[in-house]
This record gives sequence, C-alpha cells and structure tokens, in this order.
Amino acid sequence: MKLLWNVNSALPVSYQVRIVDGLLELDNRSLLESGVTDQPEQDKDIRRLIVIDDKVYQLYGERVHQYLEHHSVTYKILSLSVSEETKTMDSALHVVEAIDQFEVSRRNEPIIAIGGGVLLDIVGLAVSLYRRSTPWVRVPTTLIGLVDAGVGAKTGVNFGNHKNRIGSYFPSQMTLLDRSFLKTLSDRHINNGLAEILKIALVKNKRLFELLEQHGSTLVEERLQGVTDVSDRATIEIIEYAIAGMLEELEPNLWEHKLERLVDFGHSFGPEIEMHALPELLHGEAVNIDMALTTMISVRRGLITTQEQERIFALMRKLNLPLYHPLCETRLLEKALAETVRHRNGLQRVPLGIGIGMACFVNDLQTSELAHASMSLRQHATDVEELEVVHA
Amino acid sequence: MKLLWNVNSALPVSYQVRIVDGLLELDNRSLLESGVTDQPEQDKDIRRLIVIDDKVYQLYGERVHQYLEHHSVTYKILSLSVSEETKTMDSALHVVEAIDQFEVSRRNEPIIAIGGGVLLDIVGLAVSLYRRSTPWVRVPTTLIGLVDAGVGAKTGVNFGNHKNRIGSYFPSQMTLLDRSFLKTLSDRHINNGLAEILKIALVKNKRLFELLEQHGSTLVEERLQGVTDVSDRATIEIIEYAIAGMLEELEPNLWEHKLERLVDFGHSFGPEIEMHALPELLHGEAVNIDMALTTMISVRRGLITTQEQERIFALMRKLNLPLYHPLCETRLLEKALAETVRHRNGLQRVPLGIGIGMACFVNDLQTSELAHASMSLRQHATDVEELEVVHA
Repeated sequence: MKLLWNVNSALPVSYQVRIVDGLLELDNRSLLESGVTDQPEQDKDIRRLIVIDDKVYQLYGERVHQYLEHHSVTYKILSLSVSEETKTMDSALHVVEAIDQFEVSRRNEPIIAIGGGVLLDIVGLAVSLYRRSTPWVRVPTTLIGLVDAGVGAKTGVNFGNHKNRIGSYFPSQMTLLDRSFLKTLSDRHINNGLAEILKIALVKNKRLFELLEQHGSTLVEERLQGVTDVSDRATIEIIEYAIAGMLEELEPNLWEHKLERLVDFGHSFGPEIEMHALPELLHGEAVNIDMALTTMISVRRGLITTQEQERIFALMRKLNLPLYHPLCETRLLEKALAETVRHRNGLQRVPLGIGIGMACFVNDLQTSELAHASMSLRQHATDVEELEVVHA
Repeated sequence: MKLLWNVNSALPVSYQVRIVDGLLELDNRSLLESGVTDQPEQDKDIRRLIVIDDKVYQLYGERVHQYLEHHSVTYKILSLSVSEETKTMDSALHVVEAIDQFEVSRRNEPIIAIGGGVLLDIVGLAVSLYRRSTPWVRVPTTLIGLVDAGVGAKTGVNFGNHKNRIGSYFPSQMTLLDRSFLKTLSDRHINNGLAEILKIALVKNKRLFELLEQHGSTLVEERLQGVTDVSDRATIEIIEYAIAGMLEELEPNLWEHKLERLVDFGHSFGPEIEMHALPELLHGEAVNIDMALTTMISVRRGLITTQEQERIFALMRKLNLPLYHPLCETRLLEKALAETVRHRNGLQRVPLGIGIGMACFVNDLQTSELAHASMSLRQHATDVEELEVVHA
C-alpha cells in the first residue's frame, strides 16, 4: 500500500526591466509588444486594459488615449485614486473587477499598470490573483517606482495597520522605465525615491554614495532629466547602479527564502514608523529615519566612524530627507522590532551599516541601544534646528 | 549604457501527501510535526492556529482540543461556516485576520486547515497571501477533499459569479489523509467525491472504472471505511489510483503552463452550471453533468460506442450522480464555452472521452453539437424517470 507521495516541481520565473525613452510616442511599440506570454491568434485585435494612477492620468491621460487609438487598440482605462491609506484589498478587488468586466484572455492581453509604487503594488496583487496569474506590464512613473517597487517581485496591500502584510511574489513580465515621467514629480517625491537609492549606496556601493554627494542636488533640480552632458551621465550612472544593485540582491533570493536581505536596510523599523505616522511620511522618508537610526547604532558599535556618520547625515539633509520623527521613541521601536522578528522568523536579522558601502546582519540589538540611538537622533535634530535658527 | 536587465530564477516547490490513520489519536504526532519550513528555536513552545469547518468542529472539535492540550500546544481554533456562496475574499480575509491576531511566526508555525474542499481553498488563499506565503497543513475531511482539493496546488475563491476566479497556486507543505473522517459524511457527499474519482477513471484508468463498477455501492454504504477485507482492499486501491492519477497529471504542470489538462474533464461546462444552479448542485454533481454531456458528444463523434456510453451512464446512476439539469440548455452551454475559451487562452481545449480510460482534446466544438448533446441528455433523463415509474 502506498502511503506517501512526494510532489516536486519548480516554477521558472523570468522578467525584464528595460530603459525606454519616449514610451508614449506614437512610433514606439514597446508598450504594445510587452508582456504577452502566449501567442494570440494572428488576426486578433489588440486589446488592453490600462490601470493608471489618477494623478498620472490627469497629466498624461490624453497622450495615452492618443497612443492607443493610433495603434487601433481596443482598450479600457481604469483611473485609480491611490494612497498608502487606500492600499487595501478592496482597491485590489476593484482592479480585479475591471479585469473581469473587460473579459481579458488568459495569457495574451497583459494588463498595463502606469503609476507609482502604491499603484504598482495594488495592480500586481490583482493580476496575480486573477485566474491565479494574469500577465502584466509595469510602467513606473515615480522615482521610487523606477528603482524599487517597479523592478522587484513583490506585490501587496496593507492589512490591519501592517504595511504590505498581504501580497504575492509576481513580477511583471516586463517593466518599462521612462524617466521622462519624473519631469512632473514634486521635489519631495524625487527625494523619496533618492532614499531607496541611498539605501543601495549605503549597504553595497560607495561609488553610488559619492555620486549622490556630488550630483544629488542637481538630480532633484533637474528631475533626473539630465539637462547637461555631465548631469545626464551622472543621472544614468546613478539609475543604473541603483537598479543593478537592487536586482543583484533580488535575483538569487526572489522568494525571500533567505531572510537576511541587504535590501531590508531601512526596513526594520521603517514600516512601523511609516504606518503610525500616516499620511505624514512617505515611504522613503520613513526608510531614511530607520537608516539614520541604525547608522547611530553602528556608530556606537564601532562599525561606522563619527566622520562617516556625519557624511551620511549631511547627504541625507542635502536630499531633504528627515532623520528623525517624534514617533521614533523606544516603545514604538521595541514594538517594531518584535514585529520584524516575527516577519524574519524568530531572529532580528537587522542590517547594520559598516562604514559606507557595506553592511552586516545582527541578532542581538538591545532595547538600550534603541533608546540611545533614538535619543542621539532627537538631540541631533534639535542641534541642527538651533543651528539653522542661528544661521537664519 | 545598460538598457536591459534579464532576471531569471526558479521557485522550487515540494509537497507531500500522506495517508495516516488515527490522526487525532493522542500518540500520533503527524499533525504537530508537519509543515514547519524553517526550524524553530529549540526551547520554543509549539504554537498552532487551526482553521476548521464548523460542521467538522461540531463532530470532532472536542477531540481536536484534547489532542492539542495533550501535547501542550498554545493554540487557537477558528471555526468557520463555509459554503460555495460564502467562498469569497471576505472569508479569506477573515482567516488572514485570525492569522494576524494569533501573531504567527513566519515559517515555523504552520496553519492547520481541517475541512472539505471549500474550506481548504479559502484557507489556502489566506495563507498564500499572508506575508506573501505562510506554511500550512491540509487535513481534508470529505472525499472530494481527499482525492482532489486536498492534493492539488490550487487555492481560490469565487468572484463575480465565476467559480474560483481569484486565487493562487500554493499547495500545503503536507496533506494528511485520514479516511476515518469520512465516517460522518452523508451519502450525497460521498457520491460527490466519487464523481472526481470517476473523472480520473474515465480519462486515464479503465481498471479504476471497473473497480468503481464493482465496489462503488459498497464504498458508499461503508463510507470508505473498508468493513470487510475485500472492500478494504478495493477502497484503498481506488483511493490510491485516484490520487496517483491526479498527481501524475499535476506534477509536470503545477502552474498550468500547459492548458490542455486531462483533469479539466468535466470542468469545461461544469463550473458555469454549478454557479448558476447554486446552492442546488454540489461540485462533483456539476462535474458529472459535464461528463455526461461530453460523453454524448464523444458518442456522436464516434469516440465512444453506445455500449460504452450506457456503461458509463449506468455507473453514474449507480453512484447517484445526476446526468442532467434543466439549466443545461444550449445558450448556457455556449456561454460556458466562451468563458472556458477565455480561461484557456483563446482555444477550447475541451477534453473528450475516448472509450473508457482515455481522452483527447478538441478545439472545434459546434453549437449544434452542444444542442444535440443537451437534447439527448434531457431525453435520456425523461426515459429513465418513466422507466422508474413503470418499475415502481
């Protein structure tokens, strides 16, 4: 009598991230030709459902319509108002409903998602659920989408005041990066994306850190459009380093079987701070506060010198990223750490910076260290304010 | 300048299906030792969240409590009332909430799901979403759960009157099959499970068909408990053939990259009939109507002889499975086929029986064939009713 069956298989996952200029120009076919995972019948019409952030729709909606009509696409556009507070399963189900009503075919009518990280995360969850997976294409329109949310494998929505507590691993078959969308971003949203680039710099790429020191302000001023030859070269180098660094970490660990992840730098306390401060802090801002906090812990452990810490903080300030928030007190940090330990299956696995451009993982953070780091940051914030008052 | 990144990876998936007797006996540790995907710290308490069908809880709840207390498990039991009508994302989110409140650790506190196919599908979706995947263990308590829903890879809930329209591929790390749970099932639910076994028999195992002919009635009478040596051997053989047949089809195609699936026999029109007839028909009953319908089409195409068709229908009647439903008229069948074509990416890929124990796929079903098959079935159903009246 057979008492046991072993089932063994492997799901191959491949996806592409492509830099494309002029995505919405009429003669550019990238948007139409991406993401089809099974060939359609030859004479079939091209049908596409586009889910777009309503703020992006206001700015680029007309061009999207023109593009689709020029190519005789049968299409529907769902313009969604999204925010961290409405990043919920309800929003994902709203997208599911639109997919269902548009009656998409299973594998050759990819959903096109155009927007920032929040929109991409919501649409990603919806398409991963619809028929247990429906192909899709991502077009990030924010800097954080371009270097982080748009190139990774994770989808998700918030649940019960926990950030991205439910979701899936479902990268789009294609991500199309067109930095011209950044033209219409606010300074603050550019800085928000730079925080995730700074993260990659701090844990694995000193050259990237130096580029940010040299060109960070210009990047913000120019919205990464590379107005001069010098700034264009720097911009491209920074984007490439950021994406390459991110993908280098993700590719061998796409499903997070390894829970020590360098890309979790800034994400040990950050998510809890972000969710408690909603809607005050953007994701990158909360990440930056976490990075400032753990940098302080590194200093106290002798992993980062005071000079290095000052250099890091100076860059953070230059990028207009907050180093501290009043919520950042010991009790909340303890709670955040407990949550992180559950998320990392029983161990802290907190990435701590070593100098600039390296990091390690620790499992022995003490409450006293959190308290000390938080106090130093508060002190630091006050000193700088006073300094600014003196200078003013 | 780098313009393109290719990301390539593969997700290894392994799971086990185990036949275990006396799962709830105090000295049986299977339930506790299954599903942990990362070792816990040595001295940690065993913590488990159990999600159980409320009808199963009424019958076995006390034994589950005793078992968990005997092993000093810190536990919570969520008893859920489920049905095809409440097989929704709301129910899945209800399970997510319980997981969140129990504060399960990420990889060493597997959720235990005890119930029929509907419960397993709902819990499966919840655990696949929670932290983008949380380990789980399945304990099917119905025959359809034992041979179908409990051993496959799919989770899901209904959406917009479409069966299992949203879901994921997420098999439990372990499925524990204890047929003693079937003792308390109704005849109808036993027959419901036998329909899925009959499906495997019809498409790939003539010996299994013969076993059902010989022992089907006894299996129902004995609720698969194998009262005599002969019936016990037959029961075990039938269960093993059914599971082996199912897994043979699933293992090389776990994510349905190939859309020609033998296990879709009975599932081309069945889901639409089932959803329209709710709550009248059980899943296996709707599957059986589909199988009767496509058998009629096979007969007309010369793939099945009239003698074979009569033998198939005789077995269906013996197992008290319906062959026809008034909903089964041409317009609904056409609608169902259109839906199936979308689900199978533009082609019908309808499995049709060849004799008994084989099948092929066709893409050229005509409306006239559907109309004819439906009419023949209705006629057949009327004839048999009249015959029964005469005999009475």
